[in-house]
Amino acid sequence: MKISEKRVSGAISAVVAVFVFVSVLAIAAHAGPDEDLIARAKAVFGPLPASMPSAENPITPEKVRLGNMLFFESRISVDRTVSCAKCHPPGLYAADGLRKAIGNHCKENPRNSPTILNAAAQISAHWIGNRTSVEDQARQAVTGPPAFGMPNNESVEKILKAMPEYVALFKKAFPNDKDPVTVENFAKAVGAFERTLVTPSPFDDFMKGKARALTEQQKRGLQTFLDTGCMTCHFSSYLGGQMYQKFGIIEPYQKYTKSAQVDEGRFAVTKNEADKYMFKVPVLRNVAVTPPYFHDGSVDRLADAVVIMAKVQLGRDLAAGQADDIAAFLHSLTGKVPASLLTTPELPPEDEAGIR
Amino acid sequence: MKISEKRVSGAISAVVAVFVFVSVLAIAAHAGPDEDLIARAKAVFGPLPASMPSAENPITPEKVRLGNMLFFESRISVDRTVSCAKCHPPGLYAADGLRKAIGNHCKENPRNSPTILNAAAQISAHWIGNRTSVEDQARQAVTGPPAFGMPNNESVEKILKAMPEYVALFKKAFPNDKDPVTVENFAKAVGAFERTLVTPSPFDDFMKGKARALTEQQKRGLQTFLDTGCMTCHFSSYLGGQMYQKFGIIEPYQKYTKSAQVDEGRFAVTKNEADKYMFKVPVLRNVAVTPPYFHDGSVDRLADAVVIMAKVQLGRDLAAGQADDIAAFLHSLTGKVPASLLTTPELPPEDEAGIR
Repeated sequence: MKISEKRVSGAISAVVAVFVFVSVLAIAAHAGPDEDLIARAKAVFGPLPASMPSAENPITPEKVRLGNMLFFESRISVDRTVSCAKCHPPGLYAADGLRKAIGNHCKENPRNSPTILNAAAQISAHWIGNRTSVEDQARQAVTGPPAFGMPNNESVEKILKAMPEYVALFKKAFPNDKDPVTVENFAKAVGAFERTLVTPSPFDDFMKGKARALTEQQKRGLQTFLDTGCMTCHFSSYLGGQMYQKFGIIEPYQKYTKSAQVDEGRFAVTKNEADKYMFKVPVLRNVAVTPPYFHDGSVDRLADAVVIMAKVQLGRDLAAGQADDIAAFLHSLTGKVPASLLTTPELPPEDEAGIR
Repeated sequence: MKISEKRVSGAISAVVAVFVFVSVLAIAAHAGPDEDLIARAKAVFGPLPASMPSAENPITPEKVRLGNMLFFESRISVDRTVSCAKCHPPGLYAADGLRKAIGNHCKENPRNSPTILNAAAQISAHWIGNRTSVEDQARQAVTGPPAFGMPNNESVEKILKAMPEYVALFKKAFPNDKDPVTVENFAKAVGAFERTLVTPSPFDDFMKGKARALTEQQKRGLQTFLDTGCMTCHFSSYLGGQMYQKFGIIEPYQKYTKSAQVDEGRFAVTKNEADKYMFKVPVLRNVAVTPPYFHDGSVDRLADAVVIMAKVQLGRDLAAGQADDIAAFLHSLTGKVPASLLTTPELPPEDEAGIR
């Protein structure tokens, strides 16, 4: 019985193996046409929505306008040097280009600043899921010790209330609130603004059927991205942001990133052993223009980051050409920074506000 | 003889005194009409030019475009956190709102950041004349220890040369240079950009003859500004920037500003005893929206700064209403931040540049 069971199991395995092999050949034989690649990309990723709405925080023009201003407001930080734009400067695709973000009084943040572009539709903000949404991130940032560093919400609200232009704009944005100038509403306004920040790119044109939107190398890179298994985690319209994953499934990441410190990731939030080294899978849109890479900014070049990911997540040794192809594909995810983010609003004057 | 000389001298003095008194009465009697005030303002200040040209550094569109980008470039600073925009953030009228500017690694600069708006036509940049022009300021900033903090010009040039988009833009801006990517040309590009940053305001409309551009309080304030003698130093289209003057002619300034430290001013540059406590007279355009005040940012409110200036420079005790009137007049010098400064250009990507 046991032997025959093993034989049956072995026969099934062989059949499955042959079937898989034939399927792979069939896909390979079929992969030439752009149409197939487009269809596959659409199935895995899907079109980029025009905004990233939220039931809890509907996007309104009044909130977006206020949020756009507050994004640049540094006077609500403890040393008056930190605004959202400090760690997310518009000219650098809303990431700061530092290994780890620098907050008030030059305090180093624990991890690298992700771009806020296409960021609001993720399962959480930041790397380890300690911010549930972009609103929660904005809310926590004002009192975060290495961020704005304010002692409490009241101190932030006092500053905003002292500038009549802000009071009027909060009233317009939150007309049903008796006392609209709150950190809660600050967070909603900034969040609503961030929910508008999407950056369509050549890859979206490609998914819409314009095969020439991608170069031949970029198409090869996309194919390799799909065949290697990168899309197992980097899926959705944002190519990421939808799940947590262990960094270093196959081998410890620090072996390749040469990270000075080992970050235990989401374990810090949950204290659950299973969450050790778990990080939110980052969004890959604009990844080519937002180095350095990984939660600790330990790697400078995109192609190097691709090689490391294939190695430690998938146990694959990419050929140099393959990594360059994937990097080329990732360049097709570079869009244009939205004009609203590139345009700094004039901020309310403080002369008579006595906010110091 | 001596007695008669004294008598003659005394008689002349009396005649002069009466003449002065009558003249003052005549001016006072005449000062009602807006036309007289407009004429007097035009004579003292004059129209605001559309730009602030320089024979050494002609303004060209190519330089301005490049300079606009470089203004936001933080990757040429030693800790990658400092760009021109750090101390001159566009949303706060290109001043940082800090008492003293904060540079790389949180180093405090010796003095307050002046706005760069309407700044390029001054006799020098900064407070004590240690920067001869806006170009000289940009040139010195990149290696300035509390500013960008780079070890030398070559290290800056290496970073810029590694980004092909910058190389192309430097070539366009400096077509006759064999090796255009230099700190010298960086400074010229940033300077050319700054030379375009002028901000016409209601006061310019007033000087053009539109009497209603100023409120009645603002007109009273202008009258008091002229009558008190403020314009002795704060003259020209920029209401300042044309001379050095001792801060504290009548009394030591720190008695009123409560400054923790006494700054010897231009003496630090010239080592000339006569330059002790001499500072460049600051431009007053946009002064109402660029607190805090004075070289050390020691005073928060504009009206307080006005009271102190009258006291220590002119020995005058302004009535509270007079100081408020002058402050109201100074609000008429608030223009609009130029769109070019409020618009952050997308900066060249660095992925393959190896600039770290």
